[in-house]
Amino acid sequence: MTAGARPTLKDIARRAGVSVSTVSYALNEQSTLPLSGTTKAKIRQIARDIGYVPNGLARSLQAGTSRTIGVLLDKPVTTPRYAAIVQGLVEGLTEQGLHLALLHKGPASQWVAAVRGYQLDGLIFVGHDDHEVPGELAELVAKHSVPFVALDCGAFGEERPYSTVDFDYRAGVELLMAELERRGTRTVYYLRPDLVSRAERIREQAVFSALGQRPEVALRVVSTGITAEHLKRLEENPDQQASYVHELAGRVEQALGTDGADPGHTTLLCSWGADVEAVYRVAQRRDPRYTVAGLAAGTLTTGLWPNLVYSRLPLEGAGRECARLIMGETSTSPVHEHLLLPPVIDAGQSTNSETSAPATAADEK
Amino acid sequence: MTAGARPTLKDIARRAGVSVSTVSYALNEQSTLPLSGTTKAKIRQIARDIGYVPNGLARSLQAGTSRTIGVLLDKPVTTPRYAAIVQGLVEGLTEQGLHLALLHKGPASQWVAAVRGYQLDGLIFVGHDDHEVPGELAELVAKHSVPFVALDCGAFGEERPYSTVDFDYRAGVELLMAELERRGTRTVYYLRPDLVSRAERIREQAVFSALGQRPEVALRVVSTGITAEHLKRLEENPDQQASYVHELAGRVEQALGTDGADPGHTTLLCSWGADVEAVYRVAQRRDPRYTVAGLAAGTLTTGLWPNLVYSRLPLEGAGRECARLIMGETSTSPVHEHLLLPPVIDAGQSTNSETSAPATAADEK
Repeated sequence: MTAGARPTLKDIARRAGVSVSTVSYALNEQSTLPLSGTTKAKIRQIARDIGYVPNGLARSLQAGTSRTIGVLLDKPVTTPRYAAIVQGLVEGLTEQGLHLALLHKGPASQWVAAVRGYQLDGLIFVGHDDHEVPGELAELVAKHSVPFVALDCGAFGEERPYSTVDFDYRAGVELLMAELERRGTRTVYYLRPDLVSRAERIREQAVFSALGQRPEVALRVVSTGITAEHLKRLEENPDQQASYVHELAGRVEQALGTDGADPGHTTLLCSWGADVEAVYRVAQRRDPRYTVAGLAAGTLTTGLWPNLVYSRLPLEGAGRECARLIMGETSTSPVHEHLLLPPVIDAGQSTNSETSAPATAADEK
Repeated sequence: MTAGARPTLKDIARRAGVSVSTVSYALNEQSTLPLSGTTKAKIRQIARDIGYVPNGLARSLQAGTSRTIGVLLDKPVTTPRYAAIVQGLVEGLTEQGLHLALLHKGPASQWVAAVRGYQLDGLIFVGHDDHEVPGELAELVAKHSVPFVALDCGAFGEERPYSTVDFDYRAGVELLMAELERRGTRTVYYLRPDLVSRAERIREQAVFSALGQRPEVALRVVSTGITAEHLKRLEENPDQQASYVHELAGRVEQALGTDGADPGHTTLLCSWGADVEAVYRVAQRRDPRYTVAGLAAGTLTTGLWPNLVYSRLPLEGAGRECARLIMGETSTSPVHEHLLLPPVIDAGQSTNSETSAPATAADEK
């Protein structure tokens, strides 16, 4: 659309035979300037007739706010976990009368400059698995008091100069282990990436702690083959995903082949939801009585596939909370809140035990 | 961030002992006003020292462009098809130096007003399955010459006052039928929603046409139970998804139970990618030799599950094309282009025929 196509205050003034500032007063609801009702009505009618739309940029400039929040995703929105968070964010921000700008890569300084240059009112960083907010971003946010919310960056319990939303991975493990106990699990194969992250550490500690209360359950650890370097290569070349899945499947085959744990009392517990599909496929082909569980949800639907259990993260809810918290951050006296959201169990039918009933699911997708 | 926290032109002028307009000239690369090199360098150094950031809103106002494109999704971004398109959009728009504003619901008039009010430079509407652009939106776009691109709205071959990107559903059916023939399919169960849409019509015609060339193949039609009204209820209450999946599974069970088609030569062909998971689960439980195919991809990975074939839509590519086309639409002499993008075959291993080889996949997720 070329600028000339849009009617301006000048066009209205010419038609009404008044000055541009009179038009401006007449269209401004907040104006206290005395103006006859007839003049005001006439000017407003002309504005409607010629399809005048106020310049939103001029209004934003005057108000010193773009009413737009920048959302920085650490992974592509095609990752189901990220899509669910973005859906919660767009719903929550819209409810608050804010717009969502989806930002793509680029240096942290660029996005902080956009906030300092009034193009964005604040930033929401969507991380994963308790990884820290990238150093440069955290530094610039603190230095310039940028309104900021960090999601799933493992800050709960620590003082930060911004708001945070985290997932209670520990509670997720405890819920899941209790559900597996109800299903009669005696052996747990823990499918574990070879990564040191805060979330992995929390989950491992929680698994140990849950086993300590269940001496009848045996643990076997199976590496999924994912190292930090491997993960980086995968993210840069998504077409290598197929070879990772193939390797993972082979590792599960091998682990299940080397011993005689009773499938009806054995669970394959995936630390990552993304591993569930491959692990489930291999396990079910060997013996349909195996249970497969994920400490986050995968794409398989629990209602369709038996012996499948997720600890499901409240992803859309987390997005909506971030939208609420960024409002507090943008206020004149910023408020920092720190939330820890618990997962819920999403369990399909069990073919092994008579006691399990399908539990309720939250919104992770 | 409060406005007072950000240094202004005034702050620089005070420190440099010059007027605000001199500062403005010194910082403006395009300024032709003669200013001594020393003064200019001094002013710029002060600006750097105090961390001055130009007001992006003021620049946008002056340029009459926000460099932001509004993206309207007809379905939640949690729908895998939409997530892939949004990923292509954000990559493509960023490459063009444009920002992506994700818009949520709201009346068409609101978004058109945002373009007319310079808050957005244009709109991209992401539809699905060749459904028309909503009437009010199409009308306002035409009336106000809004820069606009419509994706998957079934406009190919028709003159529109905006650019369009569509998927070649006909080519998708032809590719898939040829692949099924290679796999020895003699009976096709067509899983069909009870909906009249342009895309359904195109797909049905293409199925008929493909069958006309293969008299040895028998067709059986199975309704998935989805009507327009049913679909609307499902979109309003996503928690009813489980009961739809249950009903669909029951219909497939019943269809396969009533006759004796040889599973090794039978394909269940889903018009919708979203139906594939449930149909595959039921078919494989009855007999693992059944082939399941989708005229769009589902969430199951072809590399993991045998006898699974998709005609995969180039979703991320379509998003990137939309980003390119909106540039043409926002230029001073707008150019309308109309693209029709072909799907590709994404096929897993076949346990029935010896001839099939895994084909290459594109980017639908």
